[in-house]
Amino acid sequence: MSLLVEKFGGTSVADTEKIKYVRDRVIKTKEAGNDVVVVLSAMAGETNRLIALAKSIHPAPDPRELDVLMATGEQVTISLFAMACKEKGVEARSFLGYQIPIETDSIHTMARIENINPEALKTAIKQGIIPVVAGFQGVDRHGSITTLGRGGSDTTAVALAVSLGADVCEIYTDVEGVFTTDPNICPKARKIDKISYEEMLEMASLGAKVLEIRSVEFAMRYSMPIHVRSTFSSAQGTMVVEEDKSMEEILVSAVTYSKNEARITVKKVPDRPGTAARLFGPISDANIVVDMIIQNTREGELTDMTFTVGKGDYKKALSIIEDTAKDIGAEEVRGDTDIAKVSIVGVGMRNHAGIASKMFHILYQHGINILMISTSEIKVSCVIEEKYTELAVRALHEGFGLERGFG
Amino acid sequence: MSLLVEKFGGTSVADTEKIKYVRDRVIKTKEAGNDVVVVLSAMAGETNRLIALAKSIHPAPDPRELDVLMATGEQVTISLFAMACKEKGVEARSFLGYQIPIETDSIHTMARIENINPEALKTAIKQGIIPVVAGFQGVDRHGSITTLGRGGSDTTAVALAVSLGADVCEIYTDVEGVFTTDPNICPKARKIDKISYEEMLEMASLGAKVLEIRSVEFAMRYSMPIHVRSTFSSAQGTMVVEEDKSMEEILVSAVTYSKNEARITVKKVPDRPGTAARLFGPISDANIVVDMIIQNTREGELTDMTFTVGKGDYKKALSIIEDTAKDIGAEEVRGDTDIAKVSIVGVGMRNHAGIASKMFHILYQHGINILMISTSEIKVSCVIEEKYTELAVRALHEGFGLERGFG
Repeated sequence: MSLLVEKFGGTSVADTEKIKYVRDRVIKTKEAGNDVVVVLSAMAGETNRLIALAKSIHPAPDPRELDVLMATGEQVTISLFAMACKEKGVEARSFLGYQIPIETDSIHTMARIENINPEALKTAIKQGIIPVVAGFQGVDRHGSITTLGRGGSDTTAVALAVSLGADVCEIYTDVEGVFTTDPNICPKARKIDKISYEEMLEMASLGAKVLEIRSVEFAMRYSMPIHVRSTFSSAQGTMVVEEDKSMEEILVSAVTYSKNEARITVKKVPDRPGTAARLFGPISDANIVVDMIIQNTREGELTDMTFTVGKGDYKKALSIIEDTAKDIGAEEVRGDTDIAKVSIVGVGMRNHAGIASKMFHILYQHGINILMISTSEIKVSCVIEEKYTELAVRALHEGFGLERGFG
Repeated sequence: MSLLVEKFGGTSVADTEKIKYVRDRVIKTKEAGNDVVVVLSAMAGETNRLIALAKSIHPAPDPRELDVLMATGEQVTISLFAMACKEKGVEARSFLGYQIPIETDSIHTMARIENINPEALKTAIKQGIIPVVAGFQGVDRHGSITTLGRGGSDTTAVALAVSLGADVCEIYTDVEGVFTTDPNICPKARKIDKISYEEMLEMASLGAKVLEIRSVEFAMRYSMPIHVRSTFSSAQGTMVVEEDKSMEEILVSAVTYSKNEARITVKKVPDRPGTAARLFGPISDANIVVDMIIQNTREGELTDMTFTVGKGDYKKALSIIEDTAKDIGAEEVRGDTDIAKVSIVGVGMRNHAGIASKMFHILYQHGINILMISTSEIKVSCVIEEKYTELAVRALHEGFGLERGFG
């Protein structure tokens, strides 16, 4: 007998028929002798509908009130789900963030969970009741509703699993698990049976959309196993767990890509101490995250600085950097958005030299020029021209033998 | 400077354009030097949408979870309204039932307000913030969301006005106020400037839809003036207040009607002590409200019992009464739904004889047969054939001179 936290995403509860399907699945798990806590997202489309409503009031709606609005999405699904359980004679009870409570800080629309009191849920479980918890939402010390940001229901599920001491946190989604790369552009992509938290974190940061980053961080910190699996199949999915010996034998676990990249180059920057700080200070003040930075020394005291930002921040960053460039006496600012980032990820890289150079060689063989490079202990990322993205992903997937299960 | 509680119904906040219009109106009132607390209903149509969702899960959804679902309707409007205020630089803050709190009993979907702690609202008002309160919802002692039943937002508004010691509770709606009768069937209907709580209560019980009964009871108990007025006009509406001398001079204040009536007759009931109790016990156990009851003595020890119920309860009541009738040895049960109830209401009736007989005479003059009669100190109701409803209303409105402002 296990205690499972099962989280179902928006596509899994998109309408009342699907809610009933998920209900049947949860009841089956419970009747097999397990205790189950269910965490639900808003019905697919509902979050966008609510955002559109808010935007029709104000292009930048008040964050506190936006949270009050957004939180209704999950409130609808948990009440419908609990009703659906009772229809089958199975006791269930919906729990909103404040009713548990899931305590967060007060940073509306991007709140962080600070504490969960699991007593109310434990009492319900003891009484044989299935707790049905609203994902994505919490309550701050003033009693205001907060939300955790996009994908926050994953974090809710993992945090609940940790606080309840669950055996596993199951994340149900519309794919079979975590894949070696995006099956949509690489038909040979293979489901990964087991992957380490660190690799999963890198993949999430590098563009894989299957799990929200904070939920993986949370699981890693408390060693909570995550099982990513399909709502509509009973097949085993991907276990996200602590690194073990077997994982190190795989040099490259996955290939990821992101087209959400833009590049800005500042030419002929006077190379003086403090220049980088003056250049990036205003960007950081505007809450724009800079990903890669490269500095090329040129003749004399002049240098070229190139960096990447998310496409959504590109225009804002460009306008800020043009002002700064004048101030510091740089010659010219250039930018483009026709770039992409492809990455390889694997804990096996740590103990094996030559993985990065193999990656460069594979790209070279396919005539793909590398514009920027960044590495960490377990990943190598290359910025390339956007049009080569799919080619690069397929080439790397094949070049590292991912379709055969070893890198 | 006054403290006003202003409640806007679903048609007044039906879309974001209307929400902005109401926002402008509220801000104007505040800028005129008043303190304002806003109470909102769900956007028109939203409540029905949510009910349909619930029904697609279960024809009789679990009441606790239905309340969780329904409460999202008001949650959406108050957040949008608060955003709209901030767009204009006016501070506003949404309050859900549990955030005030508005404490209720645990009778889900029909909860009663037990206590309101006004401190959080008072603090907000002192800080110059407009509190925007979700109507219709509260929280019980277990922290579960409750709702007050259809029209419950009126009750929320009046209860808040009482607990805050407001000067007046303004109920904004899509009509100009309370009318002498339904203007849709009687073009000569006139807006009433001032009406007593008691008359308003009778009118609400007798089919007038402008105010929810419990809100009037609440206002009467605490002498809170209610101002029923139009959202889309600045004209004075109808003040619902304590009875005064001037009201007694008006014999008939209003004519109401209800087509939501059904009649059941049990023929040849043995006239023994306890028969009525045996007949109506099972009806009452099924939570069916019986309105009028008439007993006609027939030959010997047999009697005919006729009573009315709401149309929605008719089939259920008929089936129950057929079983009971057999048990007590009654001869036959008959029923029909082609009836209506027309009523005249007025505190002036108390001190004037002949009002009822004048009503019967007017109906007789128009060839309308009276099937049942019931009276109270300030109203007379007649059940008639449904097809005569409009004729009867117009005849009574004219016969008692309501278009001229005196009865």
